[in-house]
Amino acid sequence: MTDNNVVYVGNKPVMNYVLAVVKEFNNGANEVVIKARGKAISRAVDAVEVSRNRFLTDTKINGITIGTEKMVSENGALNVSTIEIVLGK
Amino acid sequence: MTDNNVVYVGNKPVMNYVLAVVKEFNNGANEVVIKARGKAISRAVDAVEVSRNRFLTDTKINGITIGTEKMVSENGALNVSTIEIVLGK
Repeated sequence: MTDNNVVYVGNKPVMNYVLAVVKEFNNGANEVVIKARGKAISRAVDAVEVSRNRFLTDTKINGITIGTEKMVSENGALNVSTIEIVLGK
Repeated sequence: MTDNNVVYVGNKPVMNYVLAVVKEFNNGANEVVIKARGKAISRAVDAVEVSRNRFLTDTKINGITIGTEKMVSENGALNVSTIEIVLGK
Protein backbone atom coordinates (compact mmCIF):
# COMPACT_ATOMS: atom_id res chain seq x y z
CA MET A 1 0.00 0.00 0.00
CA THR A 2 2.91 2.38 0.64
CA ASP A 3 6.43 2.69 -0.61
CA ASN A 4 8.87 5.53 -0.43
CA ASN A 5 6.43 8.29 0.63
CA VAL A 6 3.78 7.14 -1.82
CA VAL A 7 0.39 5.85 -0.71
CA TYR A 8 -1.62 4.01 -3.37
CA VAL A 9 -5.34 4.23 -2.70
CA GLY A 10 -7.45 1.24 -3.71
CA ASN A 11 -10.65 -0.36 -2.51
CA LYS A 12 -10.04 -0.63 1.22
CA PRO A 13 -11.75 1.61 3.79
CA VAL A 14 -10.62 5.25 3.75
CA MET A 15 -9.12 5.05 7.24
CA ASN A 16 -6.56 2.47 6.08
CA TYR A 17 -5.10 5.07 3.72
CA VAL A 18 -5.38 7.88 6.25
CA LEU A 19 -3.31 5.81 8.67
CA ALA A 20 -0.79 5.04 5.93
CA VAL A 21 -0.39 8.77 5.23
CA VAL A 22 -0.04 9.62 8.93
CA LYS A 23 2.55 6.87 9.30
CA GLU A 24 4.65 8.24 6.44
CA PHE A 25 4.80 11.66 8.09
CA ASN A 26 5.57 10.08 11.47
CA ASN A 27 8.44 8.24 9.82
CA GLY A 28 9.97 11.56 8.88
CA ALA A 29 8.59 12.29 5.41
CA ASN A 30 8.21 15.96 4.51
CA GLU A 31 6.02 15.10 1.57
CA VAL A 32 3.64 12.22 0.89
CA VAL A 33 2.16 11.47 -2.53
CA ILE A 34 -1.32 9.94 -2.63
CA LYS A 35 -2.08 8.18 -5.91
CA ALA A 36 -5.24 6.55 -7.23
CA ARG A 37 -6.87 5.41 -10.44
CA GLY A 38 -10.45 5.09 -11.66
CA LYS A 39 -13.15 4.86 -9.04
CA ALA A 40 -10.60 5.00 -6.21
CA ILE A 41 -9.98 8.67 -7.05
CA SER A 42 -12.88 9.77 -4.84
CA ARG A 43 -11.47 7.72 -1.98
CA ALA A 44 -8.04 9.30 -2.44
CA VAL A 45 -9.60 12.75 -2.05
CA ASP A 46 -11.46 11.52 1.04
CA ALA A 47 -8.22 10.15 2.52
CA VAL A 48 -6.40 13.45 1.97
CA GLU A 49 -9.27 15.49 3.42
CA VAL A 50 -9.63 13.31 6.52
CA SER A 51 -5.85 13.33 7.02
CA ARG A 52 -5.67 17.11 6.80
CA ASN A 53 -8.77 17.92 8.82
CA ARG A 54 -8.33 15.42 11.61
CA PHE A 55 -4.75 14.25 11.97
CA LEU A 56 -2.30 16.40 10.06
CA THR A 57 -3.66 19.92 10.42
CA ASP A 58 -0.20 21.42 9.82
CA THR A 59 0.09 19.93 6.32
CA LYS A 60 -0.93 21.55 3.06
CA ILE A 61 -1.61 20.42 -0.46
CA ASN A 62 1.46 21.10 -2.58
CA GLY A 63 -0.09 20.00 -5.85
CA ILE A 64 -2.77 17.97 -7.54
CA THR A 65 -2.38 16.49 -10.99
CA ILE A 66 -4.76 14.37 -13.00
CA GLY A 67 -4.03 12.26 -16.02
CA THR A 68 -4.97 9.28 -18.14
CA GLU A 69 -3.30 5.87 -18.28
CA LYS A 70 -3.86 3.22 -20.88
CA MET A 71 -4.53 -0.19 -19.39
CA VAL A 72 -4.33 -3.26 -21.57
CA SER A 73 -6.61 -6.12 -20.63
CA GLU A 74 -7.85 -9.22 -22.43
CA ASN A 75 -10.74 -7.13 -23.78
CA GLY A 76 -8.46 -4.55 -25.36
CA ALA A 77 -7.09 -1.20 -24.29
CA LEU A 78 -8.93 0.91 -21.77
CA ASN A 79 -8.28 4.46 -20.63
CA VAL A 80 -8.33 5.05 -16.90
CA SER A 81 -8.09 8.40 -15.12
CA THR A 82 -5.45 8.97 -12.46
CA ILE A 83 -4.87 11.46 -9.68
CA GLU A 84 -1.76 12.39 -7.71
CA ILE A 85 -2.08 14.56 -4.63
CA VAL A 86 1.08 15.83 -2.94
CA LEU A 87 0.67 16.57 0.75
CA GLY A 88 3.50 18.43 2.46
CA LYS A 89 4.51 19.89 5.81
CA MET B 1 -26.21 20.60 -14.86
CA THR B 2 -24.53 23.79 -16.02
CA ASP B 3 -24.77 27.44 -15.13
CA ASN B 4 -22.44 30.29 -15.80
CA ASN B 5 -19.39 28.26 -16.95
CA VAL B 6 -19.79 25.71 -14.17
CA VAL B 7 -20.52 22.05 -14.83
CA TYR B 8 -21.73 20.03 -11.84
CA VAL B 9 -20.89 16.36 -12.21
CA GLY B 10 -23.34 13.88 -10.71
CA ASN B 11 -24.42 10.32 -11.46
CA LYS B 12 -25.14 10.49 -15.18
CA PRO B 13 -22.84 8.94 -17.81
CA VAL B 14 -19.49 10.67 -18.25
CA MET B 15 -20.27 11.75 -21.81
CA ASN B 16 -23.16 13.93 -20.61
CA TYR B 17 -20.69 16.05 -18.69
CA VAL B 18 -18.11 16.02 -21.46
CA LEU B 19 -20.72 17.43 -23.82
CA ALA B 20 -21.70 20.06 -21.24
CA VAL B 21 -18.06 21.17 -20.97
CA VAL B 22 -17.62 21.28 -24.74
CA LYS B 23 -20.82 23.31 -25.07
CA GLU B 24 -19.62 25.90 -22.55
CA PHE B 25 -16.44 26.46 -24.55
CA ASN B 26 -18.42 26.59 -27.81
CA ASN B 27 -20.61 29.26 -26.22
CA GLY B 28 -17.54 31.42 -25.76
CA ALA B 29 -16.29 30.56 -22.29
CA ASN B 30 -12.56 30.93 -21.73
CA GLU B 31 -12.71 28.93 -18.55
CA VAL B 32 -15.03 26.18 -17.37
CA VAL B 33 -15.19 24.94 -13.78
CA ILE B 34 -16.05 21.30 -13.23
CA LYS B 35 -17.35 20.56 -9.74
CA ALA B 36 -18.26 17.33 -7.97
CA ARG B 37 -18.80 15.88 -4.53
CA GLY B 38 -18.36 12.45 -2.98
CA LYS B 39 -18.30 9.47 -5.33
CA ALA B 40 -18.87 11.70 -8.36
CA ILE B 41 -15.33 13.04 -7.97
CA SER B 42 -13.91 10.15 -10.03
CA ARG B 43 -16.43 10.89 -12.76
CA ALA B 44 -15.47 14.57 -12.78
CA VAL B 45 -11.83 13.61 -13.38
CA ASP B 46 -12.97 11.25 -16.17
CA ALA B 47 -15.04 14.03 -17.75
CA VAL B 48 -12.09 16.44 -17.72
CA GLU B 49 -9.69 13.84 -19.11
CA VAL B 50 -12.04 12.78 -21.93
CA SER B 51 -12.74 16.44 -22.75
CA ARG B 52 -9.05 17.29 -22.93
CA ASN B 53 -7.87 14.20 -24.75
CA ARG B 54 -10.63 13.90 -27.30
CA PHE B 55 -12.49 17.16 -27.85
CA LEU B 56 -10.65 20.13 -26.40
CA THR B 57 -7.02 19.38 -27.00
CA ASP B 58 -6.12 23.09 -26.86
CA THR B 59 -7.31 23.48 -23.26
CA LYS B 60 -5.25 23.10 -20.12
CA ILE B 61 -5.94 22.60 -16.44
CA ASN B 62 -5.65 25.95 -14.68
CA GLY B 63 -6.15 24.59 -11.19
CA ILE B 64 -7.49 21.77 -9.08
CA THR B 65 -8.72 22.27 -5.53
CA ILE B 66 -10.19 19.76 -3.13
CA GLY B 67 -12.12 20.43 0.04
CA THR B 68 -14.69 19.21 2.52
CA GLU B 69 -18.31 20.26 2.88
CA LYS B 70 -20.58 19.50 5.79
CA MET B 71 -23.91 18.10 4.71
CA VAL B 72 -26.77 17.99 7.19
CA SER B 73 -29.24 15.16 6.75
CA GLU B 74 -31.87 13.55 8.96
CA ASN B 75 -29.17 11.25 10.34
CA GLY B 76 -26.96 14.13 11.43
CA ALA B 77 -24.01 15.91 9.89
CA LEU B 78 -21.83 14.23 7.33
CA ASN B 79 -18.57 15.37 5.76
CA VAL B 80 -18.32 15.05 2.02
CA SER B 81 -15.24 15.68 -0.11
CA THR B 82 -15.39 18.09 -3.04
CA ILE B 83 -13.31 18.81 -6.11
CA GLU B 84 -13.13 21.80 -8.42
CA ILE B 85 -11.21 21.55 -11.66
CA VAL B 86 -10.70 24.69 -13.74
CA LEU B 87 -10.23 24.05 -17.44
CA GLY B 88 -9.08 26.96 -19.57
CA LYS B 89 -8.14 27.87 -23.11
